[in-house]
Amino acid sequence: MKEIEESLIAVQGFKTAGIMCGIKKNNKKDLAMIYSTVPSVSAGVFTTNKVFSPSVQLCRENILSPVARAIVVNSGNANACVGNQGYLDAKRIVQLTAKKLEITPEEVLIASTGVIGEPLPMSKIETGIPRLVNALNQNGSKDVAESILTTDTFTKTVAVEIDVNGGKIRLDGIAKGAGMIHPNMATMLAFITTDAAIEKKTLQKLLKESTDKSFNMITVDGDASTNDTVIILANGLAKNEIITEKSPYSKIFSEALDFVTSKLSRMIVMDGEGATKLIEIHVKGAKVDHDAKAIAMAIGQSNLVKTAFFGEDANWGRIIAAAGTAGVSFNPDKVDMFFGQENVLKNGLYCGKEREREIEKVIKGEEIVLTLNLNSGNEQARVYTCDLSPEYVKINAEYRS
Amino acid sequence: MKEIEESLIAVQGFKTAGIMCGIKKNNKKDLAMIYSTVPSVSAGVFTTNKVFSPSVQLCRENILSPVARAIVVNSGNANACVGNQGYLDAKRIVQLTAKKLEITPEEVLIASTGVIGEPLPMSKIETGIPRLVNALNQNGSKDVAESILTTDTFTKTVAVEIDVNGGKIRLDGIAKGAGMIHPNMATMLAFITTDAAIEKKTLQKLLKESTDKSFNMITVDGDASTNDTVIILANGLAKNEIITEKSPYSKIFSEALDFVTSKLSRMIVMDGEGATKLIEIHVKGAKVDHDAKAIAMAIGQSNLVKTAFFGEDANWGRIIAAAGTAGVSFNPDKVDMFFGQENVLKNGLYCGKEREREIEKVIKGEEIVLTLNLNSGNEQARVYTCDLSPEYVKINAEYRS
Repeated sequence: MKEIEESLIAVQGFKTAGIMCGIKKNNKKDLAMIYSTVPSVSAGVFTTNKVFSPSVQLCRENILSPVARAIVVNSGNANACVGNQGYLDAKRIVQLTAKKLEITPEEVLIASTGVIGEPLPMSKIETGIPRLVNALNQNGSKDVAESILTTDTFTKTVAVEIDVNGGKIRLDGIAKGAGMIHPNMATMLAFITTDAAIEKKTLQKLLKESTDKSFNMITVDGDASTNDTVIILANGLAKNEIITEKSPYSKIFSEALDFVTSKLSRMIVMDGEGATKLIEIHVKGAKVDHDAKAIAMAIGQSNLVKTAFFGEDANWGRIIAAAGTAGVSFNPDKVDMFFGQENVLKNGLYCGKEREREIEKVIKGEEIVLTLNLNSGNEQARVYTCDLSPEYVKINAEYRS
Repeated sequence: MKEIEESLIAVQGFKTAGIMCGIKKNNKKDLAMIYSTVPSVSAGVFTTNKVFSPSVQLCRENILSPVARAIVVNSGNANACVGNQGYLDAKRIVQLTAKKLEITPEEVLIASTGVIGEPLPMSKIETGIPRLVNALNQNGSKDVAESILTTDTFTKTVAVEIDVNGGKIRLDGIAKGAGMIHPNMATMLAFITTDAAIEKKTLQKLLKESTDKSFNMITVDGDASTNDTVIILANGLAKNEIITEKSPYSKIFSEALDFVTSKLSRMIVMDGEGATKLIEIHVKGAKVDHDAKAIAMAIGQSNLVKTAFFGEDANWGRIIAAAGTAGVSFNPDKVDMFFGQENVLKNGLYCGKEREREIEKVIKGEEIVLTLNLNSGNEQARVYTCDLSPEYVKINAEYRS
């Protein structure tokens, strides 16, 4: 597998576009499309929030269709909590897109992100869609990556190429995140295109597994949104032997997919609202997988831990206290803790007295690996989070004004 | 029941003291005692954190003793995550206290609050205890209330008097809170004294029930601490007929206890780190009690909701989205929402367009009642929280420096 410079490539058979249609107030791009020139298979994973956007609802329906041809996305408006009108609007967007592309509405997937509770400005979108279709090009996904941003400060893309039996398969991923990033995905969207030939059922399975290890293991603020969506389209143009669950190439493909989703996840956290540090929380030595996950997530969600990281305070006490709230049984007297390579806790006791300068050096870094070894088994989990800064509060106190 | 000015009273038979012994760096009071001149019965509720202070461990043991005579409390140091030394230190404090008071160690309860991971400065405490005992007085609980503070900005006390069959019973409550306030109690301590005659078993039951409705229904930052402790001492000097579960006065006593715990809870939230607003989240119309609680707590814990309140933004979208993450099934299309008396959502749809000035007025207040009616049943729950301000981050980023 090799990572490739995304901006230089478009996965064969995919066209993309991103335009400004006036949904956002700030003259930024807010309408995007990914179009497959040939029939693709699709897979999707969506928010677990009980309150979800009609865009998600319609996408959940259309993802079941055996063929997918396009994804249409708007930013600036979540199309959520607007009553039945939201579903009618989503339907209309899909219909207009299908008509202009000369495909069926069931072949169009849809996603929305942005402010909750305001009806979509349909007249703007209606005039936007034909322009969007006319703008489709093969210059790569940069325009899409830009058009789906909300409070993000940078675009998030990653592309890889793998060899499968002599042929080459490419995967191209795009994401947006920022606030509300949390397990089970929060205000995040991710779209992955690939030219792999792969069975729809297998694609869905691999996407779900990959999401559980990546987008569902990051947390910015513990909130989960109404609109989270991860979609993959696979158009088969790589002409590889079709990948099924038992196929020898399933593992290679899934590793490439994991690489893409993991890298996008880390980018999302790094761009967490107000974040100044990326923190990897690695819990190992757990009896069962679930315990490691629960403890890593409890630490990653702790405002007290996150503010301590912002303050560059190696506050291991808050970390062990947060671990204790995970609802999981463990022996605090067996826990070892490390900031980077620096051992701070040995058998539950502070052991860093003589290395405080080294520990401080780790904590002042922009990327910090925190390791907890429970010394009780062989299971482990990794969660990515960011620090909590006054800037986070500022961004979210002023979001709608 | 009447509320009485705390600073003027001491519950008969109780003496208190609070002194400066040098645990805190800032020359503030940090060692306190509540002493019952006659044998009391006690009840206690403690942190559910798997990582807990040896002070909590010892207190859990001694609370089982049929007689309690004293509570000794230090602030500035949590006596947590310090290995076996922490338990030995707690034992030593209890022994020294017992010796000086001429009672048995089992009659002494202990609590600690403050920084995690530093050993208690025992030489300071050892010289402090005799001074503390010598300072015991009947001037009310003000000194204790001061001595248990950490990042709190004001002391928290409440006292009430109830009539029981012609006689009078008093309850006096003291608490500290600030950060790490969360269900199952976080960095909080509360001590209640009463002259009621009450059976130990009944006292424990009523305290647990009262805590579940008060201290366990507040959240400042979603973190839970290693040291949370709520203790009540009842010395019987009111000479009332002993209160048992079936006694006609059990209800009156429990109402008075609820008043004390609820008021202390609200004070704790109001003094949440960096808080500028007290927010009462009232979820009603739920099918079952647990659903109402889970939804109210999900809203109360949402950083996005709390930052919106700080920004005085009536962001009902984040509130309904937070409700959706509670892991509870409800129909968003039936939800009504109110800020104070102002209806913002009717059947899941925004209905406040014409009253935005009135809604803004509510949101600019210092105490805001947010009501969600799920319109699906008769159960309800109330959670108290505060807004999330940049000041919270500042306090917690700099706590140890």
